[in-house]
Amino acid sequence: MPERQQVSTIVNARWVATVDAHNSILENQSIIIDKGRILAILPQTQTEYAAQDTVNLPHHAVMPGLINAHTHAAMSLFRGLADDLPLMTWLNDHIWPAEGRWVNDDFTRDGALLAMAEMIRGGTTCFSDMYFFPNVVAKAVNDVQMRAQLAFPILDFPSSWAQNADEYLRKGLQLHDDFRHHPLINIGFGPHAPYTVSDGPLQKVVAFSAETNMLIQMHVHETAFEVEDATQKSGKRPLHRLHELGLLSPHLQAVHMTQLNDYEIALLAQTGTHVVHCPESNLKLASGFCPVAKLLEAGVNVALGTDGAASNNDLDMFGEMRTAALLAKGVSGNPSAVPASAALRMATINGAKALGIDSVTGSLEVGKSADLIAVQLDDVTCQPFYHLESQLVYSTPSSQVTDSWVAGKRLMKNRELTTIDLPAVLARTQEWKKKIAEADHP
Amino acid sequence: MPERQQVSTIVNARWVATVDAHNSILENQSIIIDKGRILAILPQTQTEYAAQDTVNLPHHAVMPGLINAHTHAAMSLFRGLADDLPLMTWLNDHIWPAEGRWVNDDFTRDGALLAMAEMIRGGTTCFSDMYFFPNVVAKAVNDVQMRAQLAFPILDFPSSWAQNADEYLRKGLQLHDDFRHHPLINIGFGPHAPYTVSDGPLQKVVAFSAETNMLIQMHVHETAFEVEDATQKSGKRPLHRLHELGLLSPHLQAVHMTQLNDYEIALLAQTGTHVVHCPESNLKLASGFCPVAKLLEAGVNVALGTDGAASNNDLDMFGEMRTAALLAKGVSGNPSAVPASAALRMATINGAKALGIDSVTGSLEVGKSADLIAVQLDDVTCQPFYHLESQLVYSTPSSQVTDSWVAGKRLMKNRELTTIDLPAVLARTQEWKKKIAEADHP
Repeated sequence: MPERQQVSTIVNARWVATVDAHNSILENQSIIIDKGRILAILPQTQTEYAAQDTVNLPHHAVMPGLINAHTHAAMSLFRGLADDLPLMTWLNDHIWPAEGRWVNDDFTRDGALLAMAEMIRGGTTCFSDMYFFPNVVAKAVNDVQMRAQLAFPILDFPSSWAQNADEYLRKGLQLHDDFRHHPLINIGFGPHAPYTVSDGPLQKVVAFSAETNMLIQMHVHETAFEVEDATQKSGKRPLHRLHELGLLSPHLQAVHMTQLNDYEIALLAQTGTHVVHCPESNLKLASGFCPVAKLLEAGVNVALGTDGAASNNDLDMFGEMRTAALLAKGVSGNPSAVPASAALRMATINGAKALGIDSVTGSLEVGKSADLIAVQLDDVTCQPFYHLESQLVYSTPSSQVTDSWVAGKRLMKNRELTTIDLPAVLARTQEWKKKIAEADHP
Repeated sequence: MPERQQVSTIVNARWVATVDAHNSILENQSIIIDKGRILAILPQTQTEYAAQDTVNLPHHAVMPGLINAHTHAAMSLFRGLADDLPLMTWLNDHIWPAEGRWVNDDFTRDGALLAMAEMIRGGTTCFSDMYFFPNVVAKAVNDVQMRAQLAFPILDFPSSWAQNADEYLRKGLQLHDDFRHHPLINIGFGPHAPYTVSDGPLQKVVAFSAETNMLIQMHVHETAFEVEDATQKSGKRPLHRLHELGLLSPHLQAVHMTQLNDYEIALLAQTGTHVVHCPESNLKLASGFCPVAKLLEAGVNVALGTDGAASNNDLDMFGEMRTAALLAKGVSGNPSAVPASAALRMATINGAKALGIDSVTGSLEVGKSADLIAVQLDDVTCQPFYHLESQLVYSTPSSQVTDSWVAGKRLMKNRELTTIDLPAVLARTQEWKKKIAEADHP
């Protein structure tokens, strides 16, 4: 008998949802992990490998880590600060004053750590962030060892991070240089929205993006008001303006997209523009309904995001998958729209495609990074269990996620975080809460 | 110093959401429980009571147990059996064949126990059931000591429980007699739907209900098809037919109601008819949207239900509250619609009103039954925490429910069920699953 090959980790899983091209579901498999990558996926009876760390998961499904394709991580410190309000009251009387007063290096680091703790515990291994002080978030992500795209903000107006569009761009491009070779972090452009960034900076974004292959994430057509207002003022719907500026391409991740006509859906498909759907935020702010079923049918890649915790109010991608699958049926009037397998793809491989990292992550396939989670399915909420994808999407609370690995590094071990000091994060959250609550007097 | 009054239980809670008429939120309170009722709610510093059992909940909110106002408990055994299908494929090829083959005494008992285990763990203390063999469910509810309304089924066609409308009625009225004095169980009429019960049996239901004060639960206007079909065949919308038959009254709990015009909303308000909203089931089956914001504005009492686990796929009332609050905003286009406090009322006191037990339960007030739950709020998903109602509705997973009492009896103690043998229930669920899965070949 030949000597067994030494590897870092073997995960023995009762079920595996690979989310590969065929949505293959496997049973009783060993996932062999070495040097941060998936070396093999094979029946548990095979014995050609020996591992430093063998993890037995007899009641668990293993699946790709979820990809939260749009959030504002640090805003978790504003979770539930102001709810059930008209959008402009929420922004003018609560969120913007709070941001103006509190957002700095410390706030952003503490908020990002709180968000990452919640995300890892809920099965997310990769997220896209859009917030001030992305340099601070990058450092925190590096410490925690999650995977992330940080879309640095670009606005026409000043913030505590930069004074004008040029300064946002300069700082962001510097950040991109600093993290150019980081294995887990990509820096992208985050022009906030059509109504907050003028043509000049957007033209620069298009030019830099073409030159560097950096990706772009932007809020687009979030509300009917945004579209009507722009159309009245300029005679153009925002998406058409972006198209004229050359923004619609596989480099663009257009977030929200609740207002889309058939011509625009075809345009998105034709240009390879990605859509990031945030169903719970869209519901909570009464923004409108993204036509997800139509987009998927047209061949548009639709990823999934929670948006920030100030408008959701959680970063739970299991909940978001479920809401996306349910809402698409209600909105389209078709109970077969966005079946469980499609929702699962939106939360994994579609997110990886949007973020330009689908050769690295988003599915469990040999050669990809070992970005995976384990979900325990013997709880009463998950029983009986007939079909794995349906189970994962429609009746699995994120509290059933027990373990998480990113690039082979175990970030959660039986519900315990290994790279975040959770009590310290919660203690700092308490301190922020006291200060923020005291000052929140609209 | 006078001797302290001996009581059965004192619950010391950091926060209390009373859901009383003023939605009062209290802090650092002792809830004094004796003889199954709330004797007092007073600051923790008071020492006039001594208890056999003192429960300290320093990081918890205590609130009324949730009331799931519409479910088919035993159908939990079909959870996830068939999803993402057109309604008639789902019914004809999966659910009805499975019901025809499997539904008997054993199935109903095992399924009801599974459902009750899930409901208690998720914070539900009271539910309304509509299913075959309500006599078996009644016995199981009595054993578990939850609170329930059992709306016995009435149909024009036969099932394994009864052969025709008269037999359904006879068996149901017998059950009502048997449980007339039960402290936790009410028996009601459950005529299935306008399209499955003809005028004759409905007239009997109205007459018996007037005579006995028994309540009625019925699926009404669940889908557009149901309304169009009836209107074509009879010239009347189903709700108008029910009104002519005398069904619209405070005795009726009309479930679903996704198709309602302004005249009908006014009619419901005027007759005092209750609506039971099941948002996740309506989404999953693409049934349409119940106009909850309009109903509440018109003064209609709207309760909340999960529907059965075959069309949800869970019995999680925390999730249902959240979906109800989010969806109402999206559907009405108003981010202030169904604020957290309203969602909380829908899931508690409004349910109690619909089930005719609001003098007994549905809020935490002196003299009411001690039907309450504790929710632990120091988890990362619940932090920071600015406003209790918002926290409970928008960012509290049901896995944070730690304890549950019904009529002063502790049904869950730090996540452990005290009246259900959970391993035995899960083992029987496994047996059913094997049999049902083998036979499910459409």
